[in-house]
Amino acid sequence: MQISNLLIPDLEEILKSDPAQAAELAEELHSSDLAELIDKLPDDLAVSMLGALGETEAAAALDAMEPGRRAELFQRLDRTKAARLADDMSPDERVDLVQSLPDEVGADLLARMPQDASREVRALLRYPENSAGGRMTTNFVALAPQLTVERAIEEVRRLAAEKETINEVYAVNPDGKLLGAVSLRDMVLARAGQPLSSVMDPEVVSVPPEMDQEDLARVFAHYNLLAVPVVDQGRQLLGIVTVDDVVTVLKEEQAEDIQKLGAVQPTEGGYFQTDFWTFVRKRAGWLIAIFMGEIMTASVLEHYEAARRAFTAIEVFVPLIISSGGNTGSQASSLVIRGLALGEVGVRDGARILWRELRMGLVLGSFLGIIGLMRALLVGHSGGGGMALAVGMALIACVTFGSVVGALLPLAIKALGFDPAVSSGPFIASLVDVAGIVIYLKIAIVILGAP
Amino acid sequence: MQISNLLIPDLEEILKSDPAQAAELAEELHSSDLAELIDKLPDDLAVSMLGALGETEAAAALDAMEPGRRAELFQRLDRTKAARLADDMSPDERVDLVQSLPDEVGADLLARMPQDASREVRALLRYPENSAGGRMTTNFVALAPQLTVERAIEEVRRLAAEKETINEVYAVNPDGKLLGAVSLRDMVLARAGQPLSSVMDPEVVSVPPEMDQEDLARVFAHYNLLAVPVVDQGRQLLGIVTVDDVVTVLKEEQAEDIQKLGAVQPTEGGYFQTDFWTFVRKRAGWLIAIFMGEIMTASVLEHYEAARRAFTAIEVFVPLIISSGGNTGSQASSLVIRGLALGEVGVRDGARILWRELRMGLVLGSFLGIIGLMRALLVGHSGGGGMALAVGMALIACVTFGSVVGALLPLAIKALGFDPAVSSGPFIASLVDVAGIVIYLKIAIVILGAP
Repeated sequence: MQISNLLIPDLEEILKSDPAQAAELAEELHSSDLAELIDKLPDDLAVSMLGALGETEAAAALDAMEPGRRAELFQRLDRTKAARLADDMSPDERVDLVQSLPDEVGADLLARMPQDASREVRALLRYPENSAGGRMTTNFVALAPQLTVERAIEEVRRLAAEKETINEVYAVNPDGKLLGAVSLRDMVLARAGQPLSSVMDPEVVSVPPEMDQEDLARVFAHYNLLAVPVVDQGRQLLGIVTVDDVVTVLKEEQAEDIQKLGAVQPTEGGYFQTDFWTFVRKRAGWLIAIFMGEIMTASVLEHYEAARRAFTAIEVFVPLIISSGGNTGSQASSLVIRGLALGEVGVRDGARILWRELRMGLVLGSFLGIIGLMRALLVGHSGGGGMALAVGMALIACVTFGSVVGALLPLAIKALGFDPAVSSGPFIASLVDVAGIVIYLKIAIVILGAP
Repeated sequence: MQISNLLIPDLEEILKSDPAQAAELAEELHSSDLAELIDKLPDDLAVSMLGALGETEAAAALDAMEPGRRAELFQRLDRTKAARLADDMSPDERVDLVQSLPDEVGADLLARMPQDASREVRALLRYPENSAGGRMTTNFVALAPQLTVERAIEEVRRLAAEKETINEVYAVNPDGKLLGAVSLRDMVLARAGQPLSSVMDPEVVSVPPEMDQEDLARVFAHYNLLAVPVVDQGRQLLGIVTVDDVVTVLKEEQAEDIQKLGAVQPTEGGYFQTDFWTFVRKRAGWLIAIFMGEIMTASVLEHYEAARRAFTAIEVFVPLIISSGGNTGSQASSLVIRGLALGEVGVRDGARILWRELRMGLVLGSFLGIIGLMRALLVGHSGGGGMALAVGMALIACVTFGSVVGALLPLAIKALGFDPAVSSGPFIASLVDVAGIVIYLKIAIVILGAP
């Protein structure tokens, strides 16, 4: 099923000597596997493979390819050939392609494509890439509601080859307004002579073009949809989004979340495909920003030098106390980010979440505080009962602080209109570290007496 | 489209006085919205709603409900009624239901269901919940390959009402071996008189029942599938998995990853649905485990007391240095977890990843090292050139260490057969904190001279 890695060196040899033979072998593959194969070839061989493949096969493979790599290869293709392949691609992938090419190359490609195809791309380019409009295809079947089911099936058969899906067709009025959806299933099950209007679902779930793709995925999951029509405010049918695009969106969003939660800017390509220095850039930004925040821990510790000199045991517990606050903060933020992602909680729930995390922090902080107090009291030679009490109380305070800040920060970021997943563990930990040192030292000074 | 929250109090009033009227209102909703509505009602009213609804509507709503809550409600239903509703549910949801009930209640439910339904549930219960077998339904259409397309469509029409999907039907030989798949689309497009065998796809992608659901989602995404047949080693057709289940899997996995990466044990229910003390348990475990590891930071600092007394500026930079190592470790681990999730990297790539993260750590560490050195040299009164050099070098060493450990740990966890997402930022940070303090203090002692 999946093409073996072992085949690649052999195939490269064949490609070098006889591209036509290599293409013949490759055309036996599923287009998704062919895309994966081309993705693994060096640039020059990938281009020669695309040239040798039949145009239908090449376009199908390009439809299934990872967008970043596809854009790279397109720039190495002969431009006339590139325009012909783009014309054979599916409309939604074609739009993605033009979006990921440098402006000049994209414009040239549009100029070389047949006029109706380029007009369609321009229309779809108006929508943001990550919206329902950016994910939709205009390649659907729309029919008049008064057609009988038999006539409708005939139409579907006539149009099937050029449409992306016929599993779902749409009944529209002469102005293009959506009246209802009819699944191929409903048509097959209908009695002879019934008009579409009597089998269609007039209350079909539809979405506006500006809907964010995460919300779109939620609609698909909630209603178990295979396709959803995209309509404007006047219920004009603009296009449809199919479930395979939503599966892709979900895979991408999952991968993006993982990166953001690790304080890495999202990348397009894979771990090894992405250039070393690109990763340096994607990682250095957040890392340096957080580092600049963490520098304040040094300043705070310098500020309290007198206390540290008076009680040398104080500093022994600093990493333990601040990391506990940061870890609880990570937990709270991950729960809130998850809740926001699933639509279970919203910015409106701020007060309820604050109250819950406040209590949660007090409970969890008490657990850690008791263990910390025992450690300070019983092990080492670190300062006696007063010190142990200070450690225990600081743990309760810092864990509670971490829990509340960790929970509220993603809400605040969401309220400002950004992706809450950027309030990653490292980011929250740096906030809690600085505050945690101040909280701990203040408590210690009160209990042990000012130096 | 979505039922307004405002409606709920009104509906509760109607439910209390006249359940039949409330059910009548509710039956106008999409079954997914009805499920959401029931989910929001208090237990007793939810049960009375399920009792008042028509059995088909109630079963459809139960199909769409969150499994944890559904299991709770089932235990409050009259047992005969519960068995009738379970019998009307779709087979894969029915299996999930029995799995999530206490053993005794599940067994009782099975005993009250018609024999063929309970036999089917028992057969499906053999497969782990998170496998292709656990996600599949046995409710598909299987036909003989020699049927003409017209006869096949007649069969599909006859069977449609009781089958989960007819978008894809399967050609099997008399022993139940899978010969190929035919989409409803292909049947509609076929010429009259063609046998199924000439329109079916004999190389249809299939999966084994033990395939993990994450890999299953990857297969759906790779091949853009709407359904996939599940076959055993002898290609016996056991069931099919449909794309709506995969969308659910992806939503669940995404939510689970977010929790694990925040060092929280995954929960079934939502943020507010989950009981406060359940969350305490889910969070306290990891938090205390990490805390016990972090306690070593205190021991290490106590061990180096002489050095800290000789150079009081040393401790000022401890939080800064160790957090930098932890943050780089979080980044590296998130990239590797992402790569593993997408299937881009594998355990076999350990050496390449090690080499890459080693270089990455040196580069990123140098950036932070230079900033740290400048800070130590220019601001505050913290120890002069030797100290600054020690801070800079320790940053390079700790960031490199963090990067390498962060990248290799998820691989090691994966190699041991566990989910790499448990190597969360907090977990890695605790490892790096202890090692980081040792690295830093050793470097400082070498540069500043042993006390």
